[in-house]
Amino acid sequence: MGWGDLGAFGEPSKETPNLDQMAAEGMLFLDFYTANPLCSPSRAALLTGRLPVRNGFYTTNAHARNAYTPQDIVGGIPDSELLLPELLKKAGYINKIIGKWHLGHRPQFHPLKHGFDEWFGSPNCHFGPFDNRALPNIPVYRDWEMIGRYYEDFKIDLKTGEANLTQIYLQEALDFISKQQASQQPFFLYWAIDATHAPVYASKNFLGTSQRGLYGDAVREIDDSIGKILAHLQKLGISENTFVFFTSDNGAALISAPKQGGSNGPFLCGKQTTFEGGMRAPAIAWWPGRIPAGKVSRQLGSVMDLFTTSLSLAGLQPPSDRQIDGIDLLPAILQGKLIDRPIFYYRGNEMMAVRVGLYKAHYWTWSNSWEEYSKGIDFCPGQNVSGVTTHTQEEHTTLPLLFHLGRDPGEKYPLSFASDEYQRVMQQIYFVVQQHKTTLVPGEPQLNVCDKAVMNWSPPGCEKLGRCLTPPKSDPKKCFWPH
Amino acid sequence: MGWGDLGAFGEPSKETPNLDQMAAEGMLFLDFYTANPLCSPSRAALLTGRLPVRNGFYTTNAHARNAYTPQDIVGGIPDSELLLPELLKKAGYINKIIGKWHLGHRPQFHPLKHGFDEWFGSPNCHFGPFDNRALPNIPVYRDWEMIGRYYEDFKIDLKTGEANLTQIYLQEALDFISKQQASQQPFFLYWAIDATHAPVYASKNFLGTSQRGLYGDAVREIDDSIGKILAHLQKLGISENTFVFFTSDNGAALISAPKQGGSNGPFLCGKQTTFEGGMRAPAIAWWPGRIPAGKVSRQLGSVMDLFTTSLSLAGLQPPSDRQIDGIDLLPAILQGKLIDRPIFYYRGNEMMAVRVGLYKAHYWTWSNSWEEYSKGIDFCPGQNVSGVTTHTQEEHTTLPLLFHLGRDPGEKYPLSFASDEYQRVMQQIYFVVQQHKTTLVPGEPQLNVCDKAVMNWSPPGCEKLGRCLTPPKSDPKKCFWPH
Repeated sequence: MGWGDLGAFGEPSKETPNLDQMAAEGMLFLDFYTANPLCSPSRAALLTGRLPVRNGFYTTNAHARNAYTPQDIVGGIPDSELLLPELLKKAGYINKIIGKWHLGHRPQFHPLKHGFDEWFGSPNCHFGPFDNRALPNIPVYRDWEMIGRYYEDFKIDLKTGEANLTQIYLQEALDFISKQQASQQPFFLYWAIDATHAPVYASKNFLGTSQRGLYGDAVREIDDSIGKILAHLQKLGISENTFVFFTSDNGAALISAPKQGGSNGPFLCGKQTTFEGGMRAPAIAWWPGRIPAGKVSRQLGSVMDLFTTSLSLAGLQPPSDRQIDGIDLLPAILQGKLIDRPIFYYRGNEMMAVRVGLYKAHYWTWSNSWEEYSKGIDFCPGQNVSGVTTHTQEEHTTLPLLFHLGRDPGEKYPLSFASDEYQRVMQQIYFVVQQHKTTLVPGEPQLNVCDKAVMNWSPPGCEKLGRCLTPPKSDPKKCFWPH
Repeated sequence: MGWGDLGAFGEPSKETPNLDQMAAEGMLFLDFYTANPLCSPSRAALLTGRLPVRNGFYTTNAHARNAYTPQDIVGGIPDSELLLPELLKKAGYINKIIGKWHLGHRPQFHPLKHGFDEWFGSPNCHFGPFDNRALPNIPVYRDWEMIGRYYEDFKIDLKTGEANLTQIYLQEALDFISKQQASQQPFFLYWAIDATHAPVYASKNFLGTSQRGLYGDAVREIDDSIGKILAHLQKLGISENTFVFFTSDNGAALISAPKQGGSNGPFLCGKQTTFEGGMRAPAIAWWPGRIPAGKVSRQLGSVMDLFTTSLSLAGLQPPSDRQIDGIDLLPAILQGKLIDRPIFYYRGNEMMAVRVGLYKAHYWTWSNSWEEYSKGIDFCPGQNVSGVTTHTQEEHTTLPLLFHLGRDPGEKYPLSFASDEYQRVMQQIYFVVQQHKTTLVPGEPQLNVCDKAVMNWSPPGCEKLGRCLTPPKSDPKKCFWPH
């Protein structure tokens, strides 16, 4: 979902009354970022509080490439990483993930091995349908075991766009919350639904209800579900004791527009890119009685901050034996403070850009390759900023392209290299970048090796269901990451 | 000012707390349009309730050209047109215009000859400074007479961007409102300030206060002024008896970005074009106690509707001897009704596009000429939609380009001509267009002839001040309208 997909952020059909209401009762973040322009690395960063380049969710197969965890990925979240639910356990929290895990689907990467107590959902994107021969359909897990597969047991009708998944995930959330409230045990719920990822779907009651087509229907269903979750917390009388944060794992995928793609508002390009449209995310914090209603924050925030902030809420300290990139946002949320911190924009292990204050410096620019672009793969449809949205990798490390995101949120007008402003600001940014680079210890890259043998052929539990498939023989290869 | 310049419409710096509050207390219009992508025709349409092609505010000098009222224009608002204040007079209203008139500056076009009782402001844009030899500086009038000129008596510092004009216009508004309240006479105030038109200015207290630079400073000053006007109405106890409407006369001028140009949010291009960025405008209606708070309307609205709606509020009927394009919005505002009506997008006397429901059909597309574009004049900076944003006039009258503005607000994905949807929708639109064209009686074009002799050399009152200038001898010519 993109920054511009919410009414509160200016979506011109204004079809998200519940999220808008959540913002009206809570705090809207204007400058909140994902940790990566792609799903898996951003989610790994959320749960570890660390940049993908540290936690291993990146590739070195080619320069500055986006990588994720498709079915044939060999890697996943390393055991050495400490995940938020592992730490929250120490404070007595029960942790549940509902929806897409995406941090590796092989047994050692299972979320219940990394701190979650419960899981309902899938390890990968809901792509398909696959034929279970060349590619197996994605399994859906309840806790340790597969209980079915997408398209087979959990229907997604690609023709009509109908699927009941968001409703199932919603019910799981409501049930979990009720159970935790009844048992008086603190909980962490990571409601990581698949929607609005392509293939886009919505349940029958929402199909055709949006001005925006199927994508808008999916947004409306999410909006409605969040309204129901918040209402449920209120009904159970625990809303004043529950911190809720809404955000996205990357910008809207404009490649899927107009039928399946969302909006990044006035920002440049979308998912897959390190322009604002790829990484600035909608974000709302809600905590009635604690967060004053209707506040807007300009704090530079990151999904990684949810790690540190959640620990802080639980009275825990972040691990001190490693670099944590996420900061504790509570002073910003509860006291309206502004904490000075940079935002780094990565593709693979290349720092493409950095934001410091209102300034953003691009050290590398790239939309995607000419080869891809000529095939119609376009992450910036209808947008073309000369020298900025390039189809060759352009290095600017000696003289970064500098933008002022207040005057120029669309990254259209690089500041003149000769200007005093450029000189002054870049001095400051050089220092920030130097600090970052000299202290950076990259993790072992997890997204380099792919092997069809590791696909979801025989997930745990398949025997009971008589649904195990036979994997091909192992043939590990370098994964191919085109952009 | 553009659709995307308000926090309520998703401007990412969210610096318009008063306008956002006005929306929260009133009704936000998502689909409100100017009558033209340029100032004078849009303002003429607002005050007459009629399309520029009817009221004469267009040119036939070349095909599909935007035209306005520069200093050397010979034409202006015809006597045959009935203006809103002329009609409101019949219901006992006292009418004042503060700011830019722009419907002709020659004596016969004076606003006090067209229904206004008071005027403080200028007849033209605040361009300059001029040398009073080749070009005279723009006069500022109080009622019938000039009291000074921009840059000379009313300072605008183009270097620092400092000018006190918005503050002066604000004080005029507050004083007028107080006077009317004291005399218990109903009033119509047309607060037609120059800002945010280039050259952009703000007063000292606002300079440097925005994240968006000088343009943002100007927006903040307008926002602050509107907050003061609304507070004044409340303080005087007449807010529940006063209908207030905020809107703009065209989309943000992206040609002036980033220093002096605003934002049209997710829409295509800006001022001068008939894409959404050129004509969709921010719009808020406010009337405490009558308009329920926090409402959002999807009613297709137009500045021309303010004519008919205002008459309705005053208990008057629109003239029946001529075609009126503006509709009475009160059912939409007070009862939340949706009134079916088209929106026409014109350049000159050419209907470039039409919106019916969520669909928009382009009969002609044109950004501007290659000749202009190659000189850096760009109404769509950073945007380029193949076959849509063209630098040659492209005729699509036999097979219009059709967009669904819900799924595709950015006008990037024309519907397939072969689709059922295209066939079905165009049938409906053809009918609407045919109706429109067969009943259209164009007015005498007022914007064809220019003559340096008619400039503001000797405005009424100049003798008293000893400030009359000598005009050159008359040399009427066809005005040149490049786009």
